[in-house]
Amino acid sequence: MPLNCEIIAVGTELLLGGIANTNARDISQGLAEAGIHCYYHTTVGDNPARLRGALLAAQKRADIIITTGGLGPTYDDITKQVVCETFGIPLELHGETWARITGYFDKIGRPATENNRRQALIPKGGEVFANDWGTAPGCGFRAGDTHIFMLPGPPKECRPMFEQRLLPLLKAMSPETIVSRQLRVFGMGESSAEDKLRPLMERLINPTLAPYAKEGEVALRVTASAPSEEEALRLIAPVEEEVKALLGGVVYGTDDDSLASVTLELLRREGASLAAAESCTGGIIASRLTGVPGASEVFMGGVVAYTREMKVNVLGVPEDVMDTHGVVSQEVALAMARGVCAVTGASLGLGVTGLAGPDGDGSPVPIGIVCIALYDSRDGTQTAQTRNFGDGRERVRLMASMTALDMARRKLLG
Amino acid sequence: MPLNCEIIAVGTELLLGGIANTNARDISQGLAEAGIHCYYHTTVGDNPARLRGALLAAQKRADIIITTGGLGPTYDDITKQVVCETFGIPLELHGETWARITGYFDKIGRPATENNRRQALIPKGGEVFANDWGTAPGCGFRAGDTHIFMLPGPPKECRPMFEQRLLPLLKAMSPETIVSRQLRVFGMGESSAEDKLRPLMERLINPTLAPYAKEGEVALRVTASAPSEEEALRLIAPVEEEVKALLGGVVYGTDDDSLASVTLELLRREGASLAAAESCTGGIIASRLTGVPGASEVFMGGVVAYTREMKVNVLGVPEDVMDTHGVVSQEVALAMARGVCAVTGASLGLGVTGLAGPDGDGSPVPIGIVCIALYDSRDGTQTAQTRNFGDGRERVRLMASMTALDMARRKLLG
Repeated sequence: MPLNCEIIAVGTELLLGGIANTNARDISQGLAEAGIHCYYHTTVGDNPARLRGALLAAQKRADIIITTGGLGPTYDDITKQVVCETFGIPLELHGETWARITGYFDKIGRPATENNRRQALIPKGGEVFANDWGTAPGCGFRAGDTHIFMLPGPPKECRPMFEQRLLPLLKAMSPETIVSRQLRVFGMGESSAEDKLRPLMERLINPTLAPYAKEGEVALRVTASAPSEEEALRLIAPVEEEVKALLGGVVYGTDDDSLASVTLELLRREGASLAAAESCTGGIIASRLTGVPGASEVFMGGVVAYTREMKVNVLGVPEDVMDTHGVVSQEVALAMARGVCAVTGASLGLGVTGLAGPDGDGSPVPIGIVCIALYDSRDGTQTAQTRNFGDGRERVRLMASMTALDMARRKLLG
Repeated sequence: MPLNCEIIAVGTELLLGGIANTNARDISQGLAEAGIHCYYHTTVGDNPARLRGALLAAQKRADIIITTGGLGPTYDDITKQVVCETFGIPLELHGETWARITGYFDKIGRPATENNRRQALIPKGGEVFANDWGTAPGCGFRAGDTHIFMLPGPPKECRPMFEQRLLPLLKAMSPETIVSRQLRVFGMGESSAEDKLRPLMERLINPTLAPYAKEGEVALRVTASAPSEEEALRLIAPVEEEVKALLGGVVYGTDDDSLASVTLELLRREGASLAAAESCTGGIIASRLTGVPGASEVFMGGVVAYTREMKVNVLGVPEDVMDTHGVVSQEVALAMARGVCAVTGASLGLGVTGLAGPDGDGSPVPIGIVCIALYDSRDGTQTAQTRNFGDGRERVRLMASMTALDMARRKLLG
């Protein structure tokens, strides 16, 4: 019998529409991986009576209850108190957690308040999940046949704590093993990918194959169920190969890979280095690359050249190239790419110039047009492309930065 | 008495973590605007018994029930059938909707199936919300004291149908208007802010005041309920002033403001301009600023100077300053800030150098240490600070970039 779990989110902010409940999505994905069923998500506000009601309803239906939110230091953070009262478990100060919290406040030079001390209260005899991403620890205990776990509300804390601390426990509790592998796809839409994969998707029973749209890209999830992880992986391997054969070079990586991490890895392998000259992407390419630990070994740096002066003075873009072809042109993108190689000494240079909107630049260039160039200083080869990424400043900037990284990736693959 | 509404999402894909329930967020925002309370969000799968249970629970507690999802043409789309059975209302074919659906299929040259016909079934005597964004119409009816509305699941259909068709109805039904205003705080933690605001928070009934932790900052939400928007705003204004008086300069903006947008606005007002030389933040400051439309008027550009060579060659940081003080030092940050002003011609320059981790740089500088400098080329004044942002590469980078923007903001405020 598979276990079943309910997720109860606590937070008036969710009921006011301030944020979407992405924690429920993230936790549900993990439960599915662990072979644990989930039949209900419930959200209640910071209200003791309604939280208690939701807990009692879940207790009747589920083997496992996971709450998110309400572990913060303020007086409307009620989850631990209400959960422990509902299940008759006392709270006690957890020394290690309190030391951790006071240590954190010492380090940043602010005093820990009485409120912060409440965060170190933990259900007696229960488990503690240290919080490496914030201050409120998670915790859990068993009451009768029910396992209750409490995770913090901010997604940046909830998600890693769930994945790194709670999910391994749940997998150990679950009699089934479900293993998922994501194949990451850039340069093909969800419906085109599904069109190509439809016969395979319909044929497959275990593993299953399903596409999901992610920010600017598509993830294909291959999910296998088996008595052991090894067996599940053995089921997944041939499907992964078949997908790659059907889709070709648009499959750029798996699981936690990103276009930035894959590009950096290829640079390392090739003994090459990269730099970026950005106009409309305004530093996104550089910040994505430098977001990957160890980027500095192969990412030489970047220039955010928003103004004409910077393009000329720092990157050495000739004035007449801008006058002749316009600032948004492949010629300027190429000159930027060459310039950033010269300035940084990188072997590969990216140059991006375009119009992200919402306003145009007075030229006839429509909003959404971006020119992206790649220069290889090792042999002097260069390529450039012009793309129309449509409306929406954020989307244009995102797609332009991802397309640029993908150009570098494909060049490095040869 | 304000009305109260519950949202029931129907869809197994939500419980499998395929997507987040953004519909509940979008609808909740509208309910808050309309002065309608929302105490519960529930998600169930495509399962008649569990949906019926959720409906019966909601009927006892709410004046209005809104369901999302399960209106599609496939056999697992069960919402209309289960809702109508639960409330004892028959379904009947809606001629206009059926004509619309067959017209659509004629246009794309495919036959409408028996399944599609199910989409044209509507609760007898109820309302129909035409779907201009897909095929399944929404609908609603009244059963006793309860109003039930059903919206389609895909967010691209649910959101506009809610906003354009259902929300106006709800606003007409609601006796109250609720207005929220967010005050944005940087440089003070959630618990410290609450410590200072506690007496005010406890005294207030309408409006209410509540703090929320956001990425690296804190939002204070002031929410007032009144018969009209004007009256609600009149209730909010003095609370906003009182909060500002209690917290001082850490309150940097309201609602959709960000540190980047506020800094850009101050630059515009002062006739000044800004540039950024970034080492450990790797382009985040530039990408945050350029994320705001119109940034190019006052943001001159940036240099991502990860390597020693770039600091020397592009920014003109003297080699001996790096050798004497180390790369992570206020002296280097200041030299970077001066250098980026020289390169870009900006009136203000930010320089950031630090160790984001996870690995150190071989020097005794601990991970998390960041030096941030601001140079004003108009009068040659300069300031620098050294901060310890603790562990976690992403958090160190985020806090360093926000602190740098806040330094510029405070300088511009004088």
